[in-house]
Amino acid sequence: MGAPPGYRPSAWVHLLHQLPRADFQLRPVPSGFAPQEQEYQQALMLVAALAGLGLGLSLIFIAVYLIRFCCCRPPEPPGAKSPSPGGGCVTWSCIAALLVGCAGIGIGFYGNSETSDGVSQLSSALLHANHTLSTIDHLVLETVEGLGQAVRVELTTLEEVLAERTELVAAARGARRQAEAVAQQLQGLAFWQGVPLSPLQVAEEVSFVEEYRWLAYVLLLLLELLVCLFTLLGLAKQSKWLVVVMTAMSLLVLVLSWGSMGLEAATAVGLSDFCSNPDTYILNLTQEETGLSSDILNYYFLCSHAISNPFQQRLTLSQRALANIHSQLQGLEREAVPQFPSAQKPLLSLEETLNVTEGNFHQLVALLHCRGLHKDYSAALRGLCEDALEGLLFLLLFSLLSAGALAAALCSLPRAWALFAPSDDYDDTEDDDPFNPQESKRFVQWQSSI
Amino acid sequence: MGAPPGYRPSAWVHLLHQLPRADFQLRPVPSGFAPQEQEYQQALMLVAALAGLGLGLSLIFIAVYLIRFCCCRPPEPPGAKSPSPGGGCVTWSCIAALLVGCAGIGIGFYGNSETSDGVSQLSSALLHANHTLSTIDHLVLETVEGLGQAVRVELTTLEEVLAERTELVAAARGARRQAEAVAQQLQGLAFWQGVPLSPLQVAEEVSFVEEYRWLAYVLLLLLELLVCLFTLLGLAKQSKWLVVVMTAMSLLVLVLSWGSMGLEAATAVGLSDFCSNPDTYILNLTQEETGLSSDILNYYFLCSHAISNPFQQRLTLSQRALANIHSQLQGLEREAVPQFPSAQKPLLSLEETLNVTEGNFHQLVALLHCRGLHKDYSAALRGLCEDALEGLLFLLLFSLLSAGALAAALCSLPRAWALFAPSDDYDDTEDDDPFNPQESKRFVQWQSSI
Repeated sequence: MGAPPGYRPSAWVHLLHQLPRADFQLRPVPSGFAPQEQEYQQALMLVAALAGLGLGLSLIFIAVYLIRFCCCRPPEPPGAKSPSPGGGCVTWSCIAALLVGCAGIGIGFYGNSETSDGVSQLSSALLHANHTLSTIDHLVLETVEGLGQAVRVELTTLEEVLAERTELVAAARGARRQAEAVAQQLQGLAFWQGVPLSPLQVAEEVSFVEEYRWLAYVLLLLLELLVCLFTLLGLAKQSKWLVVVMTAMSLLVLVLSWGSMGLEAATAVGLSDFCSNPDTYILNLTQEETGLSSDILNYYFLCSHAISNPFQQRLTLSQRALANIHSQLQGLEREAVPQFPSAQKPLLSLEETLNVTEGNFHQLVALLHCRGLHKDYSAALRGLCEDALEGLLFLLLFSLLSAGALAAALCSLPRAWALFAPSDDYDDTEDDDPFNPQESKRFVQWQSSI
Repeated sequence: MGAPPGYRPSAWVHLLHQLPRADFQLRPVPSGFAPQEQEYQQALMLVAALAGLGLGLSLIFIAVYLIRFCCCRPPEPPGAKSPSPGGGCVTWSCIAALLVGCAGIGIGFYGNSETSDGVSQLSSALLHANHTLSTIDHLVLETVEGLGQAVRVELTTLEEVLAERTELVAAARGARRQAEAVAQQLQGLAFWQGVPLSPLQVAEEVSFVEEYRWLAYVLLLLLELLVCLFTLLGLAKQSKWLVVVMTAMSLLVLVLSWGSMGLEAATAVGLSDFCSNPDTYILNLTQEETGLSSDILNYYFLCSHAISNPFQQRLTLSQRALANIHSQLQGLEREAVPQFPSAQKPLLSLEETLNVTEGNFHQLVALLHCRGLHKDYSAALRGLCEDALEGLLFLLLFSLLSAGALAAALCSLPRAWALFAPSDDYDDTEDDDPFNPQESKRFVQWQSSI
């Protein structure tokens, strides 16, 4: 009842989590998230290595295809008038492949922005949790200082004023004891004080890494977009040097695509293992890093009805002590003020402090309740395991599409190039204009071959 | 200190908010959000009407351009061998326009998903607020019932057991009075009970509308994508009937694009007015709908340090009463149990109830604190005024790009069509294959004209 609906692993997490994992000796590895274990690291590296295998296979395929094309069917003699039967198919398949690559780039931009959204949700949740934790510390400090001030100044003045009547002094001493007890109880509530782990620092580190990841992907996407556009331009203008340069660039981008695919696949698999059961891992990690008791961590990370508030006892004791101080001050006001008018000022000041302390106490109760911090935790998990994972899968789709498209383009480009009319103007800057009559003739020849 | 960093209007909101507004008589209208005022409605309608003006102008421009093209320069005689000097330019500009349209479609898909994200953030914040409000009601009900049960059963038993000693009966009566006071104070905390406005219902309505908006945009985007792809196919295959059908479809999509642009512009302007200062409007609206006091609404909607908790008094009184019940029960346990062993059972049961009540009380303090509900309010505003507005601006960019691209395509398509070789096979299904020798010849003629 107390906890809002939290994080639930998505279907993608379940699906990826169920994929079999193996280490370098191909022995099965359990799919629990254990990044410090060597076997698990090997399993993830093996997933990344699959992309390397894919790269090798596609390079072999391209090489075999092109060698077969070169050796088994010599290119058309230049200037041939008869349309080559497969030429049109080659150019069209090249264009289709590049269009698929462009669609992949669109998907990549979407995935990159989605991943970035997820990670920024994670870091904003961390910042929010940091705000809550530092507010708790600050509030405890402020309240304890306020109470200490009241004990040192007002209660001492009061005891001096009432010195003649011992029973009133005893009541003031009782209030002092209670105030000191409240201060002591409250000090125990600042549970994050002196903890070496700062969510702020984690958030900053995450944002820093994410910034560079985002930038690297944007650069890769722009590079691939430029390669696609310039290849299309080279095909349209029949510029041999442009097609050659773009073939080389396509090879580079193919390698980068397979490389990014390996990283994405390993990250997605690791993330799915983490996301299928994040609580245990996070609990253990936080306990190691912070040294906090498991009661407190369980309360905040699980926030279920079954787990009682570990601060309940302290809160109840503080609350009772505050109520007792109030009734003692009221008793003093009734008894002492008619006889000692000078006691009124410190008493009023004490009541003021008590009201402020009660307000702060309610704020502390609200801040210490697991609802707020657990909501941040759920938001962080949702950012990482829903948005970021989804974005990662879109990036994986982009890498797959672009690897396929570039492999197809690499198979087609040299064949399309071979169909171009011969020209040795490798630095043709002006005369590859299709509207130039001579070029137009060459263009007609090429188009007639389609 | 208590409130987390909330919503701040973005630069886009400021920019749109500063645009001048006018009513139908072109008198300036203040840019405060006032959807119920006729002048403001007129200003928004005028913004939407600007898109209608744009549609009219672009249709006139297309008509003038095509009439000038038809009358001032008759189309090439069919089968002309010499390349038409402007023909290539026409086809290329048509293709470039369609590619710009495709890029616009990509932007549109992104904007649509961004808007949908923003609105779903709004509705999930509403659902979360609804959960908090109903938990408060439920918790109050449960606690009051528990206290009532204790008063009716255990305290009555206790009074019967202790009937012999009047001072103990008086103490039990005191505890009963305090428990009744706590129950009464707590009942006043269920502030949302009986309020006619349900955030759940609002969230469901918002999600319902958003679903249809999303679907309509996806259909529009797919329609435009199909038009672009089939037009490109028609150009590549020189299929006259396809180009004619796609010209008609382009006209339809042009009208739809300008229409959606009008709606988006009016919504974006209205949203910017709302988002530049949402608190006042929302406060007034909620006060009208719920009839809650402005103290409570100010506390939750502003949640600043300067606004004190309107439940502070009730909470403090309940807390003191609970502490008093505790000390009375402890006194009874000390005094009565040695003499009346049968008093032990109801006393233990009462202390159990008191502990549960204190736990619930702390949960209530946490739920009633403005932090949680204000965070939902900020999340809802951020969803609506950041993500949804940003998505809307991307959709506006899509509409602009597609309107421009379609207008350019509509100017170019009839000219490109006129360049096609004559053929009366309007239902050519097979023989427009470029690899078919006869078609290939036509294709060469067309390409030579480029």
